[in-house]
Amino acid sequence: MLRLYYAPGTCALATHIALEEAHAPYEAVLVDFRTQSQRSPEYLAVNPKGRVPALVTDSGTLTETPALLCFVAQCFPQAEFAPLADPFALARVQEFNSYLCSTVHVAHAHRVRGTRWADGADAIEAMKQKAPSNVTECFELIEQKFLKGPWVMGEQYTICDPYLFTIGSWIEGDGVDTAKVPRVMQHRAAMLARPAVQKAVAAEGTQIA
Amino acid sequence: MLRLYYAPGTCALATHIALEEAHAPYEAVLVDFRTQSQRSPEYLAVNPKGRVPALVTDSGTLTETPALLCFVAQCFPQAEFAPLADPFALARVQEFNSYLCSTVHVAHAHRVRGTRWADGADAIEAMKQKAPSNVTECFELIEQKFLKGPWVMGEQYTICDPYLFTIGSWIEGDGVDTAKVPRVMQHRAAMLARPAVQKAVAAEGTQIA
Repeated sequence: MLRLYYAPGTCALATHIALEEAHAPYEAVLVDFRTQSQRSPEYLAVNPKGRVPALVTDSGTLTETPALLCFVAQCFPQAEFAPLADPFALARVQEFNSYLCSTVHVAHAHRVRGTRWADGADAIEAMKQKAPSNVTECFELIEQKFLKGPWVMGEQYTICDPYLFTIGSWIEGDGVDTAKVPRVMQHRAAMLARPAVQKAVAAEGTQIA
Repeated sequence: MLRLYYAPGTCALATHIALEEAHAPYEAVLVDFRTQSQRSPEYLAVNPKGRVPALVTDSGTLTETPALLCFVAQCFPQAEFAPLADPFALARVQEFNSYLCSTVHVAHAHRVRGTRWADGADAIEAMKQKAPSNVTECFELIEQKFLKGPWVMGEQYTICDPYLFTIGSWIEGDGVDTAKVPRVMQHRAAMLARPAVQKAVAAEGTQIA
């Protein structure tokens, strides 16, 4: 049995969806950010980084979304979530997910968690001001270069899809003009039509339209 | 034949080392950041992100260090750079590399490339001020929790090692007190004793002591 620690509105949703899609045996455990539970001694014993997601497995606890998504793909190969035996195709998948975690998620985080990188209200505000153009630039690149359609990697649904859906669900809040990224929005609609996505979104109590 | 686009002092060194370690057939091509070559139309045709590394393969061009490292491991399995058939062990490797790209490299970048995330000299300066404590926090976590020793994953040298070595080579510049991370410094020394590391470092014309 796997145990996924999550908080609503975070990138943990990507792994949550992947577990649902794979029909994996798991339970989802809420980490309440409103009470700063991610900084509690109990949670830091699970994940010393003090963040979500964390996935407790029989072998130990894993973190970092790209790693968790690949783990789910490899543990449940019948779901065919990643081209595990093809080095180039797998690298394409990992390249996309690595871009999401290191650049796109980071661009978003400067709007909502600027205190990570600077102190002082003016600096935090300056980061907030620049986030819309940075996130827009990322999503225009995804729209024009990376999203093959209908799924990220083309005809095959992969572990890139729940991750794009998750980070893509934040773009209105990030000030992106969604009219500029129609293919990203089509991808979101296609994701929302999948029962596993509906189930994970509902379980987290979030609203994505 | 693989072609690696790199610039000295960047995370491209990690893939450069991995290619050397694997005895891969490759050539390294300098992208001169001093003349902003990474923004030239020629280079943007190779990598529309305008960054290094980029690895040109027979199947297409790949980017993002964690993806490139896993690609090298999978293309040259005799080097045994990653536990490719063990989902949990591979996830541990990817978790570490994902942390480096999404958190540690990003913490460093706020000292040297703050213009990515805010405009205005005061905000850039505020980011610079906070970078030392952020990078220190990351490396203390690596020192205490993640680096098993002598290599990152223990007795087995993996694709985590060139990546830690590369980002770890920046910590003096980032204002980290190296006395606080003796095991990280031992890891650097062990890396510098490897011929493949010496060769890649020399080829890039960098100095790492």
